[in-house]
Amino acid sequence: MTVSTSPSYAVGIDFGGTSIKPALVQGKNVLTHGTTINPQGRSAEDTLSAMEEGIRALCRELPSLVPVGIGLPGFVDSVQGIVHGLSNVAGWTEVPVSKILSERLKVPVILENDANAMAYGEWLYGAAAQTRNAVCITLGTGVGGALILEGQLYRGSQLAAGELGHTSIDMNGEPGPYGNKGCLEAYVGNHPISTRALKAYATAGIQAPTPECTPLDLATAAHKGCAVAHNIWETIGNELGAAFANVVWILNPDIIVVGGGVAKAGDLLFPHIERSLRSRTSSVINSQLRIVPAALGNDAGAVGCAALALASVR
Amino acid sequence: MTVSTSPSYAVGIDFGGTSIKPALVQGKNVLTHGTTINPQGRSAEDTLSAMEEGIRALCRELPSLVPVGIGLPGFVDSVQGIVHGLSNVAGWTEVPVSKILSERLKVPVILENDANAMAYGEWLYGAAAQTRNAVCITLGTGVGGALILEGQLYRGSQLAAGELGHTSIDMNGEPGPYGNKGCLEAYVGNHPISTRALKAYATAGIQAPTPECTPLDLATAAHKGCAVAHNIWETIGNELGAAFANVVWILNPDIIVVGGGVAKAGDLLFPHIERSLRSRTSSVINSQLRIVPAALGNDAGAVGCAALALASVR
Repeated sequence: MTVSTSPSYAVGIDFGGTSIKPALVQGKNVLTHGTTINPQGRSAEDTLSAMEEGIRALCRELPSLVPVGIGLPGFVDSVQGIVHGLSNVAGWTEVPVSKILSERLKVPVILENDANAMAYGEWLYGAAAQTRNAVCITLGTGVGGALILEGQLYRGSQLAAGELGHTSIDMNGEPGPYGNKGCLEAYVGNHPISTRALKAYATAGIQAPTPECTPLDLATAAHKGCAVAHNIWETIGNELGAAFANVVWILNPDIIVVGGGVAKAGDLLFPHIERSLRSRTSSVINSQLRIVPAALGNDAGAVGCAALALASVR
Repeated sequence: MTVSTSPSYAVGIDFGGTSIKPALVQGKNVLTHGTTINPQGRSAEDTLSAMEEGIRALCRELPSLVPVGIGLPGFVDSVQGIVHGLSNVAGWTEVPVSKILSERLKVPVILENDANAMAYGEWLYGAAAQTRNAVCITLGTGVGGALILEGQLYRGSQLAAGELGHTSIDMNGEPGPYGNKGCLEAYVGNHPISTRALKAYATAGIQAPTPECTPLDLATAAHKGCAVAHNIWETIGNELGAAFANVVWILNPDIIVVGGGVAKAGDLLFPHIERSLRSRTSSVINSQLRIVPAALGNDAGAVGCAALALASVR
């Protein structure tokens, strides 16, 4: 394997369900975004070829190709560099992505679960910089999470750790996808939020702000003073605080970083998370703990992957 | 500090609320138990002197004194070797135990939280041997826990990690000591078990096996075929399984080791824990996970402390 002549550069690829976004990264900065690739409706082989081309294009002005890190949504063996399966993309069963791309490109290619990649980015350069123990959660359609413990990405025995979205806030509550009753994602995922909001508006006899009532719509409504929307954010904050309290009792972290679309509710949400969490934990733990929004935004995944790729060759 | 001439020996001290038990340990074996010391009603200074004497007595037939590890129930700074405070013993506020005893004995003296010490013993020589990621829980009057992650004792940012007893199984449930509603200990600690059992017998119109209805009494009753007692063990197993599921989603460990008095219920309890836990987690995680009783019994703490003391001088 050729050692890169530009070790501070790397390609970070955020592999999403509908768009694959390659980026040339240096430290915390995305220098150039490559052409976005849509993985839907094409074979893994086809997509890999498009990715190879995209990586070559990004490195065109560098003396040589640079290490590549790819963050993917699904079950990924980051040690062997194999994709076992992806959440929303068909045809990616047992694909040895690292081997295929590194043989073609002659540079190291590492894979990582997307939540882990984002967490690593936030820990190295973002909201969790300078911390030892960080818990990261991403709130969206799904609720994902990742852990940095003692300054290392902690992946667990089957590389399946950090699944905060599947922890339970009520052992007899709403079932999640694995029969796990009280599953956090069944309360604070995008769809349950909308469903519950539409119900709350109906109960209150008030018209919902939009027919979809997305978290963004609910934030807009709350900013305009809608009490129903405010109550929903309080409920979500209370539930997130309860889930975080469990993580905090188990891991006693320095920081909880909250990212994803729902986190953009900002001040509508975070004070309720804080109140709930601190009412459920001890002062020894509370005195040092910070709960903060993610800092790197949409670039966190690419930046994290690129950093992991560079770390793998050091 | 003198380097011990017998590095494979160490003194392990299990410091309990009513008895301090020093032991001379070699590997997983307790060679000799020293005289038990009662810390109640005496000053910390007095108790430290008695401990010093006990350590010297245990090492009398060795060429020299050996490293000492002490496991204590409470808030302990294992890095600085300071006891901030003990759960059930007065007079132990901000006591620099390591400094005091190591200056007198001229050997390294390390401190550890008792749950951590037991977990380390179980991980090195007991039920969790040969695992990478182990979660340990102790069921008694209190419900404590400890984590071994990637082959290291994980203590958390304020050395307060692993408190499984304070995690919640119901965000609106029974309050725990920190206002943490649904606190596991408020369901499966010795006292709540007895209280709930007495209520269940009263509701069933059946006389309780004893007026106290301790977990041991309930195990005896269940072994005799009492359906009320069987139901209680099923409820406890279901609750423990729910709490363990949260830990498993977060940490994806290899093993959960269950120790303490309540764990002695054995087959009355473990199948219910298994069923509950596996119904709440995914097959990827379940396929490898083991839930087992602790193996070292009452010696786990002393063995773990002794091993930590030896590890500190390597």
